[in-house]
Amino acid sequence: MEQAEIGLIGLGVMGSNLALNIAEKGNKIAVFNRTPEATRKFYAEAGELQGQLIPCETIEEFVAAIRPPRPIIIMIKAGDPVDQQMEILKPHLSNGDIMIDAGNANFRDTIRRFDNLKDSGLTFIGMGVSGGEEGARHGPSIMVGGTEDSWKRVEKVLTSISAKYNDDPCVAWLGNDGAGHFVKTIHNGIEYADMQMIAEIYGILRDGLKMSAAEIADVFGEWNKGRLNSYLIEITEKVLRAADPITGKPMVDLILDKAGQKGTGKWSVIEAQNMGVAATAIEAAVAARILSSQKDEREAAEKIFGLPALAAAPADRKAFIADLESALLAAKVGAYAQGFAIMSAASKEFNWNLPMPTIARIWRAGCIIRSEFLDEITSAFTKDPHVANLIVTPAFSAIVKETDAPLRRVVSYAALSGLPVSALASALGYFDAYRRGRGSANLIQAQRDFFGAHGFERIDGVDKPHGPWGSGADIF
Amino acid sequence: MEQAEIGLIGLGVMGSNLALNIAEKGNKIAVFNRTPEATRKFYAEAGELQGQLIPCETIEEFVAAIRPPRPIIIMIKAGDPVDQQMEILKPHLSNGDIMIDAGNANFRDTIRRFDNLKDSGLTFIGMGVSGGEEGARHGPSIMVGGTEDSWKRVEKVLTSISAKYNDDPCVAWLGNDGAGHFVKTIHNGIEYADMQMIAEIYGILRDGLKMSAAEIADVFGEWNKGRLNSYLIEITEKVLRAADPITGKPMVDLILDKAGQKGTGKWSVIEAQNMGVAATAIEAAVAARILSSQKDEREAAEKIFGLPALAAAPADRKAFIADLESALLAAKVGAYAQGFAIMSAASKEFNWNLPMPTIARIWRAGCIIRSEFLDEITSAFTKDPHVANLIVTPAFSAIVKETDAPLRRVVSYAALSGLPVSALASALGYFDAYRRGRGSANLIQAQRDFFGAHGFERIDGVDKPHGPWGSGADIF
Repeated sequence: MEQAEIGLIGLGVMGSNLALNIAEKGNKIAVFNRTPEATRKFYAEAGELQGQLIPCETIEEFVAAIRPPRPIIIMIKAGDPVDQQMEILKPHLSNGDIMIDAGNANFRDTIRRFDNLKDSGLTFIGMGVSGGEEGARHGPSIMVGGTEDSWKRVEKVLTSISAKYNDDPCVAWLGNDGAGHFVKTIHNGIEYADMQMIAEIYGILRDGLKMSAAEIADVFGEWNKGRLNSYLIEITEKVLRAADPITGKPMVDLILDKAGQKGTGKWSVIEAQNMGVAATAIEAAVAARILSSQKDEREAAEKIFGLPALAAAPADRKAFIADLESALLAAKVGAYAQGFAIMSAASKEFNWNLPMPTIARIWRAGCIIRSEFLDEITSAFTKDPHVANLIVTPAFSAIVKETDAPLRRVVSYAALSGLPVSALASALGYFDAYRRGRGSANLIQAQRDFFGAHGFERIDGVDKPHGPWGSGADIF
Repeated sequence: MEQAEIGLIGLGVMGSNLALNIAEKGNKIAVFNRTPEATRKFYAEAGELQGQLIPCETIEEFVAAIRPPRPIIIMIKAGDPVDQQMEILKPHLSNGDIMIDAGNANFRDTIRRFDNLKDSGLTFIGMGVSGGEEGARHGPSIMVGGTEDSWKRVEKVLTSISAKYNDDPCVAWLGNDGAGHFVKTIHNGIEYADMQMIAEIYGILRDGLKMSAAEIADVFGEWNKGRLNSYLIEITEKVLRAADPITGKPMVDLILDKAGQKGTGKWSVIEAQNMGVAATAIEAAVAARILSSQKDEREAAEKIFGLPALAAAPADRKAFIADLESALLAAKVGAYAQGFAIMSAASKEFNWNLPMPTIARIWRAGCIIRSEFLDEITSAFTKDPHVANLIVTPAFSAIVKETDAPLRRVVSYAALSGLPVSALASALGYFDAYRRGRGSANLIQAQRDFFGAHGFERIDGVDKPHGPWGSGADIF
């Protein structure tokens, strides 16, 4: 029997979809699940793809079915189960075989797993897969971290199953050990910020302009034809248009406003902190989800405070909606700039040499934040891969110059009206701190020297690092 | 010879000051430093306090000089040196002796050190000491974590040296193992936010209202007589009044606007993330320091973007300055509410049973954020120690009701004028998200269910956790 090109362990929804995608693209694949019933069911339902599948009920059988060096995708619950699965697999593998963790691992675990295999003759790939169930089945964006040799062994299969942006496959080898899972984490962090900014704009339309779900759907539908064109804007229109089958009311109006989270937003913030990068838009998005989950406290607080009166409605409603579109675009630039800045710092910290244009390129299709916007980022970074910040590239500085005034007006309106826009405001604050050559941190340095003798630098370069704070100092 | 009541290792600035404070309050203290020269110099300069000091040049001599069970304060560089010092000390100690780390340790290290000593008969205290050099010398705020027994052994000495707020000593045992260092970390996180908010207001006065350092000093001087009365506002006036001895210009105008940081702000944010608490004001403060340090990038960005035109100056300048005072107070409430919320979550997570009124009480004097404001927090938490959030206590909800409109006007003005106010805006966003019973996270839940089948709850309690997103769904 012809051997499989690749193996996959874990036939949950994501694993099954990935396996079917691999089979459908003409690659023979061996599959295994802890419970053989799941393997049988999966195979039975695979229809005309059965010819590409080798269902296996023992690890021995499974390993023997794959052409060496064997790439084996592990698609199971992240965390300890992955370590356990690796321990089970290890004794059955041979020199050069590759274990591939395709789950949402913390990249620090990935580095540990990679390092632990160093002297074993085996190797490890940490692979970020974005695009949800649909992506896994029909074309995800795939972020690969590991050795370049191991990448070469899987490049063909992964290229065949990845999403395509105008024929350009959305998969790439990004660097050693944890590079793939790290980039996937930051992808998700950006996704948090992007979604939160959309939700804040939605909040202004609903609670400020008192528009119905259907009216708001029209707005997002229009925007999806413009510069905001993206998967998230597209589905925002769709979910706003959907009717609840039970009541006939807009579905979105019946959904509880408590948003869950699974950890990648939090990891993004923690790593930004570890690397000393400002990531306020992602931080605001994570905080907004936390506050959303404190529904009881919020309801109690509304009873105490009521809601502030709305600021005077914008005289020209159409112009204000255009402002909202520009504001969202501006804020989005800020969020993406922060995300890429985190990756840039991590690239140095972990010696990954992350290719920024490539990362933007493989996010253009397949993943949740896919958009035309990422094609513009690809171009900007291709022209200048070592630019200090996305904001100062010619293309994006032009966008910011065009859209920052509308963002100011929107944040001002929301602040006066009591409409929470922490993510939008954080992006504005980021621009305004980043573009100001002389900030107000000189006061902080003076205070720190006053109470802690921390010292400071002077603008005139004079080497006199402490202030005359003591008694007897000249004062004004 | 009479034995010492306590010992101290590490005669740097903080250690020397703490030792002199202990001696001055009538406690006999043995001191030791790695280099005996430092010990000799310290003793020689101690003047009339020599009678309370037992300078020691060997560990054996040092340990023998202390009355068992021996409390030994270690005041050296945080990190590995502390572990090394503990290893050196251990063989010389006896059952019941207490090693006390008084440095700025990460509380996770403190927990590890505490646990490592569990079966040794020795015990460990992690002690946060706030107030800088002056505090150490004349009365710091002291946050103690460890066993209650070990606390009883040191209570008298620590009480004698601590700061007093109307005779009430600013020291307390806060809980087991890392409780003291954790509370000190969050103290510093709040300090970051408090300082950043003051710097943002200063930025508005300087760059928005074009006021001189001396004029701004007058403003802070006035505010220090009002509800903002605090050490930080007091020293803000002082540093703004100080003249550079070289040029005669205002000192603050010659200080480079690059603020340093030492890690506790970052730790506060990371632990807030680990515990799922919204801490946007501290996050904004840490981010502001990061951006301040990117001076070259900021200057380059200003060349590209220029600075936005200021919004029309407020017609009534005096009223606007009153708005700034109220805005700072409102934002401060937000920052402290977040800090206490982090401690409240940590208290559960680590089984510390942290006493919130006590924490506020011991911060009223000695530490950098000391203020009348903390006396108000003490009262609020004493009345209701288990309140969900500081904001909803009667005293603080009254402040917020009175000051949130000015905060709105200030954030609005700054947003329109390009003046960065991320910390002020984050506090406003926090209020506005927290007080709104129905937020906009329902849209996020709809999106997450659309692309990832994450499911949602419904406001009508119906158990139908997925939306009709597929083709054929009813749409508006």
